[in-house]
Amino acid sequence: MHYVRNAWYVAGWEQDLPAATPTPISILDELIVIWRTADGTVTALEDRCVHRLAPLSLGRCEGDRLRCMYHGLLFDAEGQVVEIPGQDLIPRDARVRRYPVIVRHSWLWVWMGDPALADADLVPPAVGFDNPRYILGRGQLDYAAEARLINDNLLDFSHLSYVHTASFGASETWARSRPKISTLERGVRIERWIENEQGMHSPEPNDRWSTYDFLLPGVLLMTGGNYPVGTAARLGHAPPDLEDALSGVTFTSQAVTPTRPGQARYFFSWGPRTDMGDAALAEKLMGIAAKAFAEDKAIIEAQQRVIDRTPDPRIMPTTADKAVTLFSRLVDRLVRAESSPALPARQRAAH
Amino acid sequence: MHYVRNAWYVAGWEQDLPAATPTPISILDELIVIWRTADGTVTALEDRCVHRLAPLSLGRCEGDRLRCMYHGLLFDAEGQVVEIPGQDLIPRDARVRRYPVIVRHSWLWVWMGDPALADADLVPPAVGFDNPRYILGRGQLDYAAEARLINDNLLDFSHLSYVHTASFGASETWARSRPKISTLERGVRIERWIENEQGMHSPEPNDRWSTYDFLLPGVLLMTGGNYPVGTAARLGHAPPDLEDALSGVTFTSQAVTPTRPGQARYFFSWGPRTDMGDAALAEKLMGIAAKAFAEDKAIIEAQQRVIDRTPDPRIMPTTADKAVTLFSRLVDRLVRAESSPALPARQRAAH
Amino acid sequence: MHYVRNAWYVAGWEQDLPAATPTPISILDELIVIWRTADGTVTALEDRCVHRLAPLSLGRCEGDRLRCMYHGLLFDAEGQVVEIPGQDLIPRDARVRRYPVIVRHSWLWVWMGDPALADADLVPPAVGFDNPRYILGRGQLDYAAEARLINDNLLDFSHLSYVHTASFGASETWARSRPKISTLERGVRIERWIENEQGMHSPEPNDRWSTYDFLLPGVLLMTGGNYPVGTAARLGHAPPDLEDALSGVTFTSQAVTPTRPGQARYFFSWGPRTDMGDAALAEKLMGIAAKAFAEDKAIIEAQQRVIDRTPDPRIMPTTADKAVTLFSRLVDRLVRAESSPALPARQRAAH
Repeated sequence: MHYVRNAWYVAGWEQDLPAATPTPISILDELIVIWRTADGTVTALEDRCVHRLAPLSLGRCEGDRLRCMYHGLLFDAEGQVVEIPGQDLIPRDARVRRYPVIVRHSWLWVWMGDPALADADLVPPAVGFDNPRYILGRGQLDYAAEARLINDNLLDFSHLSYVHTASFGASETWARSRPKISTLERGVRIERWIENEQGMHSPEPNDRWSTYDFLLPGVLLMTGGNYPVGTAARLGHAPPDLEDALSGVTFTSQAVTPTRPGQARYFFSWGPRTDMGDAALAEKLMGIAAKAFAEDKAIIEAQQRVIDRTPDPRIMPTTADKAVTLFSRLVDRLVRAESSPALPARQRAAH
Repeated sequence: MHYVRNAWYVAGWEQDLPAATPTPISILDELIVIWRTADGTVTALEDRCVHRLAPLSLGRCEGDRLRCMYHGLLFDAEGQVVEIPGQDLIPRDARVRRYPVIVRHSWLWVWMGDPALADADLVPPAVGFDNPRYILGRGQLDYAAEARLINDNLLDFSHLSYVHTASFGASETWARSRPKISTLERGVRIERWIENEQGMHSPEPNDRWSTYDFLLPGVLLMTGGNYPVGTAARLGHAPPDLEDALSGVTFTSQAVTPTRPGQARYFFSWGPRTDMGDAALAEKLMGIAAKAFAEDKAIIEAQQRVIDRTPDPRIMPTTADKAVTLFSRLVDRLVRAESSPALPARQRAAH
Repeated sequence: MHYVRNAWYVAGWEQDLPAATPTPISILDELIVIWRTADGTVTALEDRCVHRLAPLSLGRCEGDRLRCMYHGLLFDAEGQVVEIPGQDLIPRDARVRRYPVIVRHSWLWVWMGDPALADADLVPPAVGFDNPRYILGRGQLDYAAEARLINDNLLDFSHLSYVHTASFGASETWARSRPKISTLERGVRIERWIENEQGMHSPEPNDRWSTYDFLLPGVLLMTGGNYPVGTAARLGHAPPDLEDALSGVTFTSQAVTPTRPGQARYFFSWGPRTDMGDAALAEKLMGIAAKAFAEDKAIIEAQQRVIDRTPDPRIMPTTADKAVTLFSRLVDRLVRAESSPALPARQRAAH
């Protein structure tokens, strides 16, 4: 699986992890168990008992410890075995891997790389349910497709004109527009004016501004707003002030997690800024999202099935692929760096 | 998959392909999209967009062109990309493979080999719904088995005495009779008198004549009729004139298409000659066929499962296998010729 | 599949094999058909016709012979083809493998190794429904797990304290107790006093004695009984006389059969000694067993899934694993001997 390891991957919604409930999740094909203590501490360990390889996610939380419920070995929050029933000596190397984990913006983030490089500042600035400026809905989808294909999809909105005519009501303008694309340290920024367009966000023609960052390992953070027709031209197609928007200011956070080879989980939230909508609008947007993301899933899973049946799959890049290509190169560069023993570890992460 | 490529494979029933409806079909494990324009032209292309490998069968027909509904690339009927939204230049090699296709005898026939060798005269002379001499019913079945095993089954009717006692009411006579088997340029002919036999076609004892050709790539075309007991002996077991038959003259066309490794699709029609039956009889025969072909499917899929679990599967040929062996040798010879670069292409097909 | 071949494997319950009904079973990934004649003789053959590899288990019993219902070949009870319809000569080597089979203790036992070594004395002394001393219930479960993992489970009852708290009501005593473990010629014996324990067999505290043999290829035979508190100490923890038990004398026979790689079938019976219970108690015990064995299945199949996703699975033995380790070594030694051409065959089995 060709993904960056030194990054925070979304493992789930904080809201879906009750206390004292060990929960299994696969990330980058690794078996992980996550649980939360009564006081809110979240721990992530390798989900595989050292004794006979039963999953710890079938275990029992005992305070901040987790007991394997096959033969009773007890693990502390560092992954160290601290009790073997009926046995006095515990081998020093009786331990499983611990994964750094952070709860932020309503998501559980797990660091899959070198724990020494885990840096909380690298958590992408998503908008969570704790953010008072937005009224959000949320959801998730399991994909029978590589996370990379979903990332590609999110990096090229020209597909809106074909995949999402029924849901987002996108016209051909999306496919023909060429956004401004710039590189970030850990991602790509995509900014675009769609001029004189009706659509999902407004029945009246507007100039629609949208901007999103697509960040490692696969997180989309997007906002935008509607402006009077002519605004884009007046600003020379430069970014507007979102405070000046007439309507349609929303925020969506989306995360793509590679779970197993050929499988991924897609997490998303979306909703209006509090001054531009209410719970009813947030719910309406979720309805649109449910339809649109099912459209994406249908085409991407079909694409995966074709790739699986293609002995030497090759793509033919188009002009619309600029952001896809930039992000792919970033991933390639970091994956190479991570597997290079010549570079000092800290430098590998900072790259 | 050990099959002849330079042959017409049945891709489906003409009746099941509405206009402007791209339809996916796998033949010899290749991904193919077939569609028909409003004026009836049928086109078959590789079902894989050159851009990012989405299936074109999820696309949209636009006249005689087909648009990929992922990012909007438009293909003409030759498989050439003629439009990339938002991009002026189109690479010359932006094209997918086109497959020769013919609509005849109610079937869609796709040529899987060298397009230069596609010869309409090689379409087997099946009986379609456009033939006024027969009243037909039709059906199809998907097999979890190699097409080759279904071909073997159709080439050796000794199985009727064991597989089809409940449906065709076949006695042991079938297994003990030895038909006359002769080779054709692209197949095998099997002729047989079953003497003084009651059965499906008549409650009274008759001499039953049947003759079928089994043609490349896997097409069975069979007719026959009932005659007074003693006819076979009187004719010295030579073929009778079908115009002299008392009853039971029917025609069945059957085609076996290898779709994917270990999978096949089986198409069939059957019915009485107009002067020897009516729609009620055609329907009755379809009921018998449904039962009989389910019996075949059960034993052949079970056979496939045994083969799949046999490290070095070997068969032990019997006397009844003569037609099976002749047809296998024909396939072997043609497959070898097709993969031999020494022979000129045209000669390879003519072989 | 790392299992001893020269052993009797349970293929099924005698009660489940009606006369003249060929039944397929996989043992050690081999395809076997078992059938019983009207006079009760049971035969086991390779389930694969020599002709075109159709399964004989779809065939028809004709006296003590079995006819393949694809093209009619007839096999005798030795596996020799004795009839090929329409063919006079039958090749000498037209035969399938015959497996030695014994019906005993209500189970069908199949010898998977060298037929010359098949020794009826090696059938484990299970308790069948023909034994008047016990009132039994029975059941079976299919596992998506290696038989070896189920054997491991049955060889280490420390799991009772964690897996079976809800069903058997086992306390931590099981995990902390250290049974007496001794080796047998073809297995391991495990004896244990659980002192001053309430539980499944009695609401009052008792000293509970239990003893079981775990025998090749994977057969557990267990009995035990309840004694007044203090009995274990009084006997110096030596085995008691089962005739002196207050209550709770039962017998359970369990057999684990490796069917296919990663799959197994688990057979079990259990019930009270006639002087210590009735049909109602036998039924109650079956209810407990159904719950407990579902608990085992859940954890063992989860363990298998983790192992399947572990590139180089290694276990960390604990003190509780003594019997597991002894039995594994026995299997290793016999498997090595079976695959060693230097040893005479008889010696290999006797080892």
